[in-house]
Amino acid sequence: MKVQPRTLSGFMELLPGQQVLMETFLAALRETYGLYGFTPLDTPIIESSEVLLAKGGGETEKQIYRFTKGDSDLSLRFDLTVPLAKYVALHYNDLAFPFRRYQIGKVYRGERAQRGRFREFYQADIDVIGDGKLDIVNDAEIPAIIYRTFSTLGLKNFQIRVNNRKILNGFYAILGLTDKAGDVMRTVDKLEKIGPEKVKGILTEDFGVSGGDADAVLSFIGIKGTNAQVLEALEAYRGRNELFDTGLDELGTVVKYLAAFGVPEDNFAVDLTIARGLDYYTGTVYETLMVDHPEIGSICSGGRYDNLAEYYTDKVLPGVGISIGVTRLFYVLQEQKMLNENANTAPADVLVIPMTEDLAPAIALATRLRDAGVRTQLYTEQKKFKAKMSYADKLAVPFAAFLGEDEVKEGVVSCKDMVSGEQTKLGFEETLARIQTALEARRRGTVIQER
Amino acid sequence: MKVQPRTLSGFMELLPGQQVLMETFLAALRETYGLYGFTPLDTPIIESSEVLLAKGGGETEKQIYRFTKGDSDLSLRFDLTVPLAKYVALHYNDLAFPFRRYQIGKVYRGERAQRGRFREFYQADIDVIGDGKLDIVNDAEIPAIIYRTFSTLGLKNFQIRVNNRKILNGFYAILGLTDKAGDVMRTVDKLEKIGPEKVKGILTEDFGVSGGDADAVLSFIGIKGTNAQVLEALEAYRGRNELFDTGLDELGTVVKYLAAFGVPEDNFAVDLTIARGLDYYTGTVYETLMVDHPEIGSICSGGRYDNLAEYYTDKVLPGVGISIGVTRLFYVLQEQKMLNENANTAPADVLVIPMTEDLAPAIALATRLRDAGVRTQLYTEQKKFKAKMSYADKLAVPFAAFLGEDEVKEGVVSCKDMVSGEQTKLGFEETLARIQTALEARRRGTVIQER
Repeated sequence: MKVQPRTLSGFMELLPGQQVLMETFLAALRETYGLYGFTPLDTPIIESSEVLLAKGGGETEKQIYRFTKGDSDLSLRFDLTVPLAKYVALHYNDLAFPFRRYQIGKVYRGERAQRGRFREFYQADIDVIGDGKLDIVNDAEIPAIIYRTFSTLGLKNFQIRVNNRKILNGFYAILGLTDKAGDVMRTVDKLEKIGPEKVKGILTEDFGVSGGDADAVLSFIGIKGTNAQVLEALEAYRGRNELFDTGLDELGTVVKYLAAFGVPEDNFAVDLTIARGLDYYTGTVYETLMVDHPEIGSICSGGRYDNLAEYYTDKVLPGVGISIGVTRLFYVLQEQKMLNENANTAPADVLVIPMTEDLAPAIALATRLRDAGVRTQLYTEQKKFKAKMSYADKLAVPFAAFLGEDEVKEGVVSCKDMVSGEQTKLGFEETLARIQTALEARRRGTVIQER
Repeated sequence: MKVQPRTLSGFMELLPGQQVLMETFLAALRETYGLYGFTPLDTPIIESSEVLLAKGGGETEKQIYRFTKGDSDLSLRFDLTVPLAKYVALHYNDLAFPFRRYQIGKVYRGERAQRGRFREFYQADIDVIGDGKLDIVNDAEIPAIIYRTFSTLGLKNFQIRVNNRKILNGFYAILGLTDKAGDVMRTVDKLEKIGPEKVKGILTEDFGVSGGDADAVLSFIGIKGTNAQVLEALEAYRGRNELFDTGLDELGTVVKYLAAFGVPEDNFAVDLTIARGLDYYTGTVYETLMVDHPEIGSICSGGRYDNLAEYYTDKVLPGVGISIGVTRLFYVLQEQKMLNENANTAPADVLVIPMTEDLAPAIALATRLRDAGVRTQLYTEQKKFKAKMSYADKLAVPFAAFLGEDEVKEGVVSCKDMVSGEQTKLGFEETLARIQTALEARRRGTVIQER
C-alpha cells in the first residue's frame, strides 16, 4: 500500500529551476538589507501561545496554527514583528540601540485556500528600533532601502508611496472628526474603486459627516502633484493642529533627503490616500506599487510605530520598518512571466563526462574546477553517450567537459558550450577562463526582467 | 499587565554577533554543496501527517509535533529525508536523474529538553538519487564533499570514517549470524566504552554466539591500519559470500578515488566499527569525528540506501547522502570556544556620523559607500559625541566616518579604524580603498578556529 505523495494546498513547493531563482531573490534581499547596516536575526517558528498572542484577538487569531505538545500551548508565528518585539524585550540588555535587524523567514496563517494565497510564506522584514526615541532620518532612509532592493532585483517600474499618519489624524482633528477618523479613512480607502460621489454618500449618510466636511475630506485626499506641490498644498493647513504640523515636518524631512539617499523622484510619491490600517502605525507609512500592475497591490509596506513591545516591557521602543511578502510576490512574478528566463538555474556550471575506464583523470578535472570555484558535477552513470548529453540538456548545464584517452594523453579538455554548441579542445587554464567568462556574462542578468 | 517575554526551551535564539557567525556557517554550506552540483530545495515545514508518517512508528513518532487544523491532520517535519522522498515521488516526471539536491532547513523533534539538545534545529542535507540504479562513484565523492565542507568552515582536525554495510552483513552471513546481526552490531558498538571482554561476554551469554564466533567478530572488528592495510586484511575474507565481496569492491572504489577527489589520507579512514543504525542504510556508511573531541560524536553522517521513496511509489530510487546537524554542531563549537572571535560580526562596516546641521553630505557619503558595496549605517540620533562612539564600540563596527563642515568644504572624509584607532582625513576614493583593504583582510578568517 502506497501513500499518495502530495504537498498541502497553500504551501509553495518549487521545482529546482524556480527554486534557484527564489534563492537568488532571497540572496539579493539579504545583500541589500546588509548594505544598510541591518543585522540578520533568526527566531523560532514555534513560540509559546501566551507570548505570541499577548496582544490578543481579532482576525489573526483564527488563522493561527495553535496546538498543544505535552503541557505546552504553542503557536506558529504569523508574522516577524511579534517575534521581534519578544526578542528586543527579552534581550534588551544585550542590544545596542538603535537596533537594526532584518529577518527573512517563514510565517504561518491558516487562511482560506485560494489561488495566490499562501498558508506558509516568507516575509522579509527590516526594522530600526530606538530606545525611547528614534530620529526621523531613519524614516527618510527607508525609501532608499526599498528603492535599492527592487532595483537590485531588476524591477524598474515601481513607485514608493509615502504618507504620514500624523497628517491624517491632525487633519481629521481640525475637522472635529477624530472619533470618526477610522470610519472615514476606511471609506476614503475605497475612493479608487467606487468614486468620490459614493464616498461622499457613505460619509454623510452612514457616518453623519456634514456635507461640507465630506467635501473638505475629498478635497484634502485629492491633493495631487509633484512632491513639492503636495507639500506646498499641505502648508495651507499648517498652524491649526500640532499633530498635523509635526507630521508635515516629518514628511518634509523624508522628502528633503531623497536625492542624497539616491532615490529618483520617479520612484517616489507623497500620496495622502495611503493609511496602512488603523492602530499600529503612528507616523510615516509606506506602500510600494508596481506601476504596470496596480492590481497586485502593495509589494512592500510598512511604517513608523510608537511602541514595539508594549505587551512585554515598560520600555518605550519606537521603530520604523517595512516588510516584503516574498512568497506572494514571487508567485505573482511567476504568473506575470517576469522572472528571468535566461538565468542560469542549472545545479552545476560544468558536467564532467569521463570517457575513460579509469575515472581518476575526470575526477581530478572536477576537483580542479571546484577548486577554482566552478560548480561541477561528475556524471558517472553507465549510460549511452546520447543519454548523457540529454541529461546535460535537461539540467540546462552551461558546459559539458569530456575527457577521453586522447585528451588525457595530450593534457587537454574537450569542452562544449551547451548554448552555442561550440566545442573547444584546450588546456585546463584556457578552458577554465572560457567557462568563467561565459558564466560571468550570464550572472549579469537580474532575477526580475521587465518588458 | 505585561506578558513575560521568553523563548521556548530547546529552541536556539542567538544574539546578533553569534547569528552573523551562524549565517556565515550556513552560507559556507550552501556554497560548498553548490560546488558539487547540488541544487537547493525548499519544502514546507508542515506536511500532511499521512504523508509524513507513511513509514510509521517507532521512537520518532512520539517526538513529532502533530496537530489538527480544521479537518487536516498535520505534522511538522522531523527530518529532511522524508520530505525529499515525497518531493521526488511527487515531482518524478519533472526531475532529471541522478537528482542531486541540498536542503538546509529547520526540523522539529519534541525530545526531552536537555543541554545541547534542540527541539527546533537546522539540518543540512545532500543526497544523490538515482532512477533504478546509482553508480558507486557517487559514494566515493561524498568524502570529498565532507572534506571540503569542513575545511571551508575552518576545521582541520577531523576524520571521515567509512564502512560498508554489505561487508558487515556479508561477514555475519559467513559466520551464520545473519539473524543475530542486529544484536551483535549493537553490542560491538559499545566496544570503545566497555572493552572487548565485556563485549564477548554479552555476545556469548545474552545472544548465544559461540566463543569462537565471538572471537572471530572481535578480530574482524579489530582490523586496523592504513586504508590499504585494512582493505588487504579484508581480502582474506573474499570468496566466501557474494554480498561481502560486493561490499569490498565498493569500499575499494571509494578508497581508490580519494586522492583524485582531493581528500588527504589523514582525513579519511576505513573503520569497520561504523554501522549507522540497522535498517535504513544498505551500502557505504559515513561518520565524521572531530579528532580532538571524540565525545561530541559524529558531526556529519550518512550513507547509501536502496530505496528512497518506497512508501510513495513503485519506482526504485537508490541514493546516497549525508546530513549535518547544524544547530547542535554550532552549539558545540560555541561551547568549545572554537568560533572565530575576530570575525567581523558588526551589522555594518562603517558607521557614518554626521557633524553638520544639514545631513545631506553625510547621507550622500553613506549612499556612495553602499554603491561601492560597503555595509554602511548612518547614525543620526541626537546624542553626545561620546555616546555615538560608545555605540560604534558596542556594535564593534570596523570604521567610523565623520563629516564636519571642514571635511565637507575640503571634500574629504575623516575615518577612524576602530580596531587600530588610526584616523585618516582623505578623499572618498582613498578612504574607500583603505576600508576595503581592511575588510578584505578580516574576511580571510574562517568561522571555525582550531587551536
